[in-house]
Amino acid sequence: MSQTPDSAVRTYIEQHCSAFLDDLAEWLRIPSVSAQPDHAPDVQRSADWLAAKLLETGFPTVEVWPTPGAPAVFAHWPAEDPHAPTVLVYGHHDVQPAAREDGWDSEPFAPEVRDGRLYARGAADDKGQVFFHTLGVRAHLAATGRTAPAVHLKLLIEGEEESGSPHFRALVESRADRLAADAVVVSDTGMWSEDTPTVCTGMRGLAECEIRLYGPDQDIHSGSFGGAVPNPATAAARLVAALHDEHARVAVPGFYDGVVELTDRERELFAELPFDEARWLRTAKSYAAHGEAGHTTLERVWARPTAEVNGIGGGYQGPGSKTIIPASAMVKLSFRLVAGQDPDHIEKAVRAWVDEQVPDGIRHETVFAAATRPCLTPLDHPALRSVARAMGRAFGTPVLFTREGGSGPAADLQEVLGAPVLFLGISVPSDGWHAPNEKVELDLLFKGVETSAYLWGDLAEHWREAS
Amino acid sequence: MSQTPDSAVRTYIEQHCSAFLDDLAEWLRIPSVSAQPDHAPDVQRSADWLAAKLLETGFPTVEVWPTPGAPAVFAHWPAEDPHAPTVLVYGHHDVQPAAREDGWDSEPFAPEVRDGRLYARGAADDKGQVFFHTLGVRAHLAATGRTAPAVHLKLLIEGEEESGSPHFRALVESRADRLAADAVVVSDTGMWSEDTPTVCTGMRGLAECEIRLYGPDQDIHSGSFGGAVPNPATAAARLVAALHDEHARVAVPGFYDGVVELTDRERELFAELPFDEARWLRTAKSYAAHGEAGHTTLERVWARPTAEVNGIGGGYQGPGSKTIIPASAMVKLSFRLVAGQDPDHIEKAVRAWVDEQVPDGIRHETVFAAATRPCLTPLDHPALRSVARAMGRAFGTPVLFTREGGSGPAADLQEVLGAPVLFLGISVPSDGWHAPNEKVELDLLFKGVETSAYLWGDLAEHWREAS
Repeated sequence: MSQTPDSAVRTYIEQHCSAFLDDLAEWLRIPSVSAQPDHAPDVQRSADWLAAKLLETGFPTVEVWPTPGAPAVFAHWPAEDPHAPTVLVYGHHDVQPAAREDGWDSEPFAPEVRDGRLYARGAADDKGQVFFHTLGVRAHLAATGRTAPAVHLKLLIEGEEESGSPHFRALVESRADRLAADAVVVSDTGMWSEDTPTVCTGMRGLAECEIRLYGPDQDIHSGSFGGAVPNPATAAARLVAALHDEHARVAVPGFYDGVVELTDRERELFAELPFDEARWLRTAKSYAAHGEAGHTTLERVWARPTAEVNGIGGGYQGPGSKTIIPASAMVKLSFRLVAGQDPDHIEKAVRAWVDEQVPDGIRHETVFAAATRPCLTPLDHPALRSVARAMGRAFGTPVLFTREGGSGPAADLQEVLGAPVLFLGISVPSDGWHAPNEKVELDLLFKGVETSAYLWGDLAEHWREAS
Repeated sequence: MSQTPDSAVRTYIEQHCSAFLDDLAEWLRIPSVSAQPDHAPDVQRSADWLAAKLLETGFPTVEVWPTPGAPAVFAHWPAEDPHAPTVLVYGHHDVQPAAREDGWDSEPFAPEVRDGRLYARGAADDKGQVFFHTLGVRAHLAATGRTAPAVHLKLLIEGEEESGSPHFRALVESRADRLAADAVVVSDTGMWSEDTPTVCTGMRGLAECEIRLYGPDQDIHSGSFGGAVPNPATAAARLVAALHDEHARVAVPGFYDGVVELTDRERELFAELPFDEARWLRTAKSYAAHGEAGHTTLERVWARPTAEVNGIGGGYQGPGSKTIIPASAMVKLSFRLVAGQDPDHIEKAVRAWVDEQVPDGIRHETVFAAATRPCLTPLDHPALRSVARAMGRAFGTPVLFTREGGSGPAADLQEVLGAPVLFLGISVPSDGWHAPNEKVELDLLFKGVETSAYLWGDLAEHWREAS
């Protein structure tokens, strides 16, 4: 009985899926939370674990690259044909903070399979999506009889994505020769739904800051002093309230400078998607749509810049009451940026706005984290076809095109390496990124493996004609 | 050598001050935080400790009165003359929450004397001020050769004042016959300064609520959903920002209904005080005066109703960042009320305002704690003279008159018992009520003892002519 390459790939995956899941679960048990300093040893452990696993997978070159923060993992598996294209896969091995009491049904770092889903912090964002490439490349070799991939395959899996990738750009710049690639494949995004596989064509950028506001030198009695001195919690609240105008547009002067508006073609592609707002709201676990006037929900999350409060705090938050004017308050803000916006300009505009807003008698400081630039894949770039074809084979249906509201350091890779960025992600919106009960659908995880297994051959075959 | 009663009182106090301070320190070691349920056994311990100490002081009747919350302590020491007036001293044995890491220089529940000050949570608010009456009554007896006080002396020391006295009114109503008194002396206020002894003539009332706002069913990714659904932290902030108008007046419709404005005589009494705004700001540890337009700072804190944010919280407040739209946020508000305002009306007005303000897609609940009514001693009440005279003897200087911005359940006593309320407090604004490093000045503590020692004789002598 002769096998088509597709069925050979599927057979290989079936034979190895159990060991693959065991390995992934082992990795997910490492709480590699880059935002929390006491988890730094775990982030290191996560990098070391991945490096060992990539060696075992067959990559002849595997290196853990230290940074001033958390380490990245680099791997390289050259093709036999020296003229084959070079592809760099990007992902990250760090995860968002998670604690059982946030609302998890099981321990976030004790992976559990329930109803065909693997629940764990990092299952979808991003360990699961990094890891499908390991079985993918093995299936590619097994199905094609090769001993090396059809492309020069490189992996760069960083350890600070969930902290805004503060050292990523410097790392890429200092290792640009090792990372040199003809295309970058980012596996850190999602697709439309289980039934509608899609390829993402852009991500928003991200600028984040914490604004700390200081009032009295210590908490003071709200009876003795209330009503006669400024309250930093009130100042924090007024700042947040002033962030949007009555049209839900960001009210920071200069915020929209340079924003690239959607083209008609992009609007058409959005319109091809089976968007159902009631269903989208269920996925968002939210009870109303609300956003910038004059834009649809999809435009708001994919193509419009936004400002959100990620955290606010000040004064007494425990049980009962404490009648104080608090000494301090703080606000964590994040701004999603779209093509045409410059994070440096945004930082200046926000700082000027905060200085203007904070009232007399309240001292303040604004601390910005490293920013992530927005990123757009040219819609007419021929390499998109390889990704769309590989994914179409895996899913057995033509793929549509989306964008991603989230952010990643893909734009830095595009800029420093001079390579186009493509997105290959198999996560769905209900996967709970950054939320309690994060999970990955096992079916989709293996579609990811399959897509990865098809992609390298397709790219090698079509790259030269495309370029 | 003949002794005047004043010098006899002073000699007695000098002889017993060391044991008195040891006893007070023992009481302050009990963390009787009524707002925190896990301290309930400590609040009970505090009541039991005080009851034993009052028996030791000589009160023939001492009882611990349970409530559905924390217990109160009642004591009664009848005068020999059945026609002597009956005076009820009010105070509280519970304290505000406190933790070393809030900014204390020493453990809040390990009392420490430094530079003539006793530092501990409760040192001034209110254990110190309750306790000075124990040595006060002994000095009164010693100096006058009596075996019982000149008045029928009752004490009611409650255990839930720092939690808004939720069961106090019911307790007073159910025990009204035991508590019956001709006058109530509240020792839970302060005076102008060490150099300017004053008698307080009123306290503000207090209404407190917590508003909880719910957005998504769980924290959701601010990249995937940001800019397209309502954020409960933003809603919380907008609520707080809408609480005051541009004149720093409370913007809740109906809030000022019934407010009794200051009379000219009251304004004159305020003006006699040596008010220095720069100095007041240093005491408030604040950097600007800010409040209702058209009113002075003293008017704002003593005679005007206010709204303050005591706490605000929502989303991620830890180190680094977490790019979420939080599932929930909350705000703790307190409203200080003045004569003429009705807490029930305020609660209705605030609930209606919250319902109006919260946007679509955000669910909310508002929980009110038990309210405290405002209280004003009639300026022309003759019993004020007894308190002013006793305090003038202790301090060796005539006293002036103030009000108190804080709140206490004195108005309930006035209303239920039909007795005038007088304020005898020796704390100063720098004592740090509800703040880190709360302390009491030892000099003033003993002036309190002395005032208490003079008061009962003066009241017995002048009461009948005054009534």
